[in-house]
Amino acid sequence: MYRTHNNGQLRIDDVNQKVKLCGWVQKSRDLGGMTFIDLRDRYGITQLAFNETLDKNLSVKARKLNREWVIEVEGIVKERSSKNLKIDTGEIEIEVEKFTVLNESKTPPFTIEDETDGGEELRMKYRFLDLRRNPLQENLALRSEMSIEIRNFFHQNNFLEIETPYLIKSTPEGARDFVVPSRMNKQQFYALPQSPQTFKQLLMVSGYDRYFQIVKCFRDEDLRSDRQPEFTQIDCEMAFVNQQEVLETFEGLIKFLFKKILKTDFPKPFPVIAYSDAIEKYGSDKPDIRFEMELSYLENLAKGKGFKVFDEAESIVAISVPGGAEYSRKKLDELTDWVKRPQIGARGLVYVKYNEDQTFKSSIDKFYDVSNLKEWAKKCGASPGDLLLILSGKKSDVQSQMNELRLLMGSRLGLRDPKVFKPVWVVDFPLLEKDEISNSFHAMHHPFTSPKTSDLAFLETNPENVRANAYDLAINGVEVGGGSIRIHDRKIQEKMFEILGFSKEEAEAQFGFLMSAFEYGAPPHGGIAFGFDRLCALFGGKDNIREFIAFPKNNQGRDVMIEAPSEIDQTQLDELEISLPKLKG
Amino acid sequence: MYRTHNNGQLRIDDVNQKVKLCGWVQKSRDLGGMTFIDLRDRYGITQLAFNETLDKNLSVKARKLNREWVIEVEGIVKERSSKNLKIDTGEIEIEVEKFTVLNESKTPPFTIEDETDGGEELRMKYRFLDLRRNPLQENLALRSEMSIEIRNFFHQNNFLEIETPYLIKSTPEGARDFVVPSRMNKQQFYALPQSPQTFKQLLMVSGYDRYFQIVKCFRDEDLRSDRQPEFTQIDCEMAFVNQQEVLETFEGLIKFLFKKILKTDFPKPFPVIAYSDAIEKYGSDKPDIRFEMELSYLENLAKGKGFKVFDEAESIVAISVPGGAEYSRKKLDELTDWVKRPQIGARGLVYVKYNEDQTFKSSIDKFYDVSNLKEWAKKCGASPGDLLLILSGKKSDVQSQMNELRLLMGSRLGLRDPKVFKPVWVVDFPLLEKDEISNSFHAMHHPFTSPKTSDLAFLETNPENVRANAYDLAINGVEVGGGSIRIHDRKIQEKMFEILGFSKEEAEAQFGFLMSAFEYGAPPHGGIAFGFDRLCALFGGKDNIREFIAFPKNNQGRDVMIEAPSEIDQTQLDELEISLPKLKG
Repeated sequence: MYRTHNNGQLRIDDVNQKVKLCGWVQKSRDLGGMTFIDLRDRYGITQLAFNETLDKNLSVKARKLNREWVIEVEGIVKERSSKNLKIDTGEIEIEVEKFTVLNESKTPPFTIEDETDGGEELRMKYRFLDLRRNPLQENLALRSEMSIEIRNFFHQNNFLEIETPYLIKSTPEGARDFVVPSRMNKQQFYALPQSPQTFKQLLMVSGYDRYFQIVKCFRDEDLRSDRQPEFTQIDCEMAFVNQQEVLETFEGLIKFLFKKILKTDFPKPFPVIAYSDAIEKYGSDKPDIRFEMELSYLENLAKGKGFKVFDEAESIVAISVPGGAEYSRKKLDELTDWVKRPQIGARGLVYVKYNEDQTFKSSIDKFYDVSNLKEWAKKCGASPGDLLLILSGKKSDVQSQMNELRLLMGSRLGLRDPKVFKPVWVVDFPLLEKDEISNSFHAMHHPFTSPKTSDLAFLETNPENVRANAYDLAINGVEVGGGSIRIHDRKIQEKMFEILGFSKEEAEAQFGFLMSAFEYGAPPHGGIAFGFDRLCALFGGKDNIREFIAFPKNNQGRDVMIEAPSEIDQTQLDELEISLPKLKG
Repeated sequence: MYRTHNNGQLRIDDVNQKVKLCGWVQKSRDLGGMTFIDLRDRYGITQLAFNETLDKNLSVKARKLNREWVIEVEGIVKERSSKNLKIDTGEIEIEVEKFTVLNESKTPPFTIEDETDGGEELRMKYRFLDLRRNPLQENLALRSEMSIEIRNFFHQNNFLEIETPYLIKSTPEGARDFVVPSRMNKQQFYALPQSPQTFKQLLMVSGYDRYFQIVKCFRDEDLRSDRQPEFTQIDCEMAFVNQQEVLETFEGLIKFLFKKILKTDFPKPFPVIAYSDAIEKYGSDKPDIRFEMELSYLENLAKGKGFKVFDEAESIVAISVPGGAEYSRKKLDELTDWVKRPQIGARGLVYVKYNEDQTFKSSIDKFYDVSNLKEWAKKCGASPGDLLLILSGKKSDVQSQMNELRLLMGSRLGLRDPKVFKPVWVVDFPLLEKDEISNSFHAMHHPFTSPKTSDLAFLETNPENVRANAYDLAINGVEVGGGSIRIHDRKIQEKMFEILGFSKEEAEAQFGFLMSAFEYGAPPHGGIAFGFDRLCALFGGKDNIREFIAFPKNNQGRDVMIEAPSEIDQTQLDELEISLPKLKG
């Protein structure tokens, strides 16, 4: 037996016990005749003491132990003379009687500390060392805890976890698939699932009326910093339910998790907001409602006064920043530069200071007098001391720009505390999005989302106005999950594919199995999927999902530790009967 | 709300309640003025009653309902006049007041009954209908239950579930990888993991001393009936443990599962047998110890009597079949044909009947007299009435043939009750297997398995005799899991790769990250992986793992329901820059 206890376990009550411990040398201090070593494992740190007067040889040997060496020690638990009440084991230390070096360590390329000196690339290359750091160990422990609690919730609520296949069929709809060449079926490919969508629907047809799965999904997209080519989804589906029951069930899951993991109660139902209202009020379909600062529309007040920029704009949108009237010119210029960056894309920023003394100072004083500006301030609900920030242009552009600016100002004013959680359901999403360039329609969620019965009549005449039985859950401005009531009628599904530009043959080739299933007694059903990586990051109070994934890929989709992807043997290519073009030399 | 109860829920105490139910029409009977319908969902069956005298119209409508139609009904719970005590809801029925057809169904291509009339191919094509049948619903419910209990066990024992990546690097070692072409890294490929082996070892290096994961793994092998290209593994690893502690921990898991799922106790430790003893006694490294019928070796008794077949054989192996002396000539001929099939490969079968009257009758009476045969019977522990079955030839061949024959005879004698479970640990596996053709060595488990310290000296001189710290768990002749204590020392790992024929460069290119990790304080560690599909089938008392997988592939690796794999678009191929040879026309 290597150890009797771990390094977070021993207390003052254990004094005089003989124990064995294992772990990594965190640090070592020589104080005259005494050598102290902090021994670390994932449970904590225990102090080892070597007394030169008790055993000179052992002390000499101990002084040779370096950081990250793995050792096994045997000794007696003693009360410390100078206690460290910041750590659980801080009242005791081990008077070491013997020890064994289980493995040595080279000097790590960065320090194994909460705040390390290693850059991200180096830490990714040596991920096995980065993962020794406390913050990452806490993140992965949180993730494990969340996954067990999620399963407990589902188990208590009669859901079955059913595994769906990873080697499925490629469909051109949606994001790009990763494909897998088949050796046994030459010239053919599997695809890795972007989600188990069609399989969970088939399970509903099969009568498994409550399904869930925590499952990896794959999308071959150009990566942004918060995207991974493989990601984990909490995938859920129910039969014989309407939208309200789905929302209640999964609101139950989220409340259960907040209670179990963060000891946070949500006594009231989560607020529900229509998609169109969310866009109107916040410029976003995943609004951060931890703070107000809602969008106000000034078209009726600000047009026709000779300011050409406003006169020509479809939309003029303002937010009122509390206490912002005292912003310096420099600060306002910096905000103007910020909104003009290509990522935001505004053409300029108009400000109106509503000073404490009830005077106004704006960047457009030439065109508007105090009475105009007072009207604006009133419309925005501004008080003396506040600052109006105004963007103008095409309505949908301005709304999305203003969303970004609102979030920035919320952050700057400290209104976005990561320990405060404000969930909101966004409902009544449009069924379709129009691609202005190709003049074709895409499914806003996916082609299996059902249109609202009340809007079914417009499906032919006015598709862009058809609302879907679709819903998202946003928490603190993050889209945590989304789902819908699905189509379960073959005719409506066929119509949907037709609107999306599928020929009859294409629809049949790609989704014939699902439409066939709808002909054999498919029940009404709906569900939701949550992004598990993102949910973990949210619960952990962080933005970067990579810190909640043991072995993430970088922005080029590479694992720089194992060096994947990589070239493969010609024999492998030959067996698969695929060939690669000659590299340009 | 579609329903107030499910179809397995209502009891006599609910009589006179108004309820709503949903489900599928299982069957319908017209008895004069009464129409009865069995309404089915995964929870059970509830009888619906339509009384013509109460509501003529409704009865007429109800008579039009066909099998597998989905309906929603509203009515009053009534006590049945003729009760069916075989089902939980058999004391009540619903006097239906109104109903709605939620979806119609075409006539299913096979009956949705416990014993269906559909062949396997048809049922695979309509898997969504096959999955409606009770036996499959019970299997998937069992699987879900097992997965939650497994996680409970690990959670209670301080294991973390940590997800490892699916897009990893291809390595030529072991079985064939499925590969995934990368679009962002042209001409390069990911591989799908055959197991998370190297990642779980890295997690040990990172200090996560108790890891588990229920995880999909992938092998592109030519499929046998019990293999799937994607399969699920319970993957586990621990640090600072020796072999004994690993066995105890996972014996704990298996006992926990037997207790929770099958209410079966194993008060004693599982027996442990050395690999060499298992092969000697049972001809198998996964012995079925539900019955004895051990192998006996007759070389010393049977050679030198002029029977050329035996004289020239390396090995002469017998089993004693209880009560087999009365087998007819026809039955013995049939057994002879059975062992001569190419799957078994024996050249012939010798029998010796030890009759109840203590006389002998054998197929080799020409060469052996009664005193010879009596010695054989004694050696085999046979009693009057028993039958000796004898195979001869190359020792390892005969052992494996005799294993098959022993299992067959065990089955025929009813000694292999699927409700009786006999686990056994097989330990001390050889580290290496010699490939006679190429005269090279393969790792018997995998290249990360550690040699026994006591045998380390022979690694250079006598590699085939080196034993590994490797172990398997067999239950009822099925290999349920296997693992080892791993190498955690770079030098031994390098030596291992060298023996396996890797050049220094190849070892570095493929496993450099792992050997690098061993240089930064890798702790001693070991683990195990269980085949989850197989474990579910075992607990469910079945042989065929496909019945425990929602959407399995067939023997050609195809999903015939969704038609995968399939051809992909030329645009997809172009984006990946891979090309396929022209099909021969």
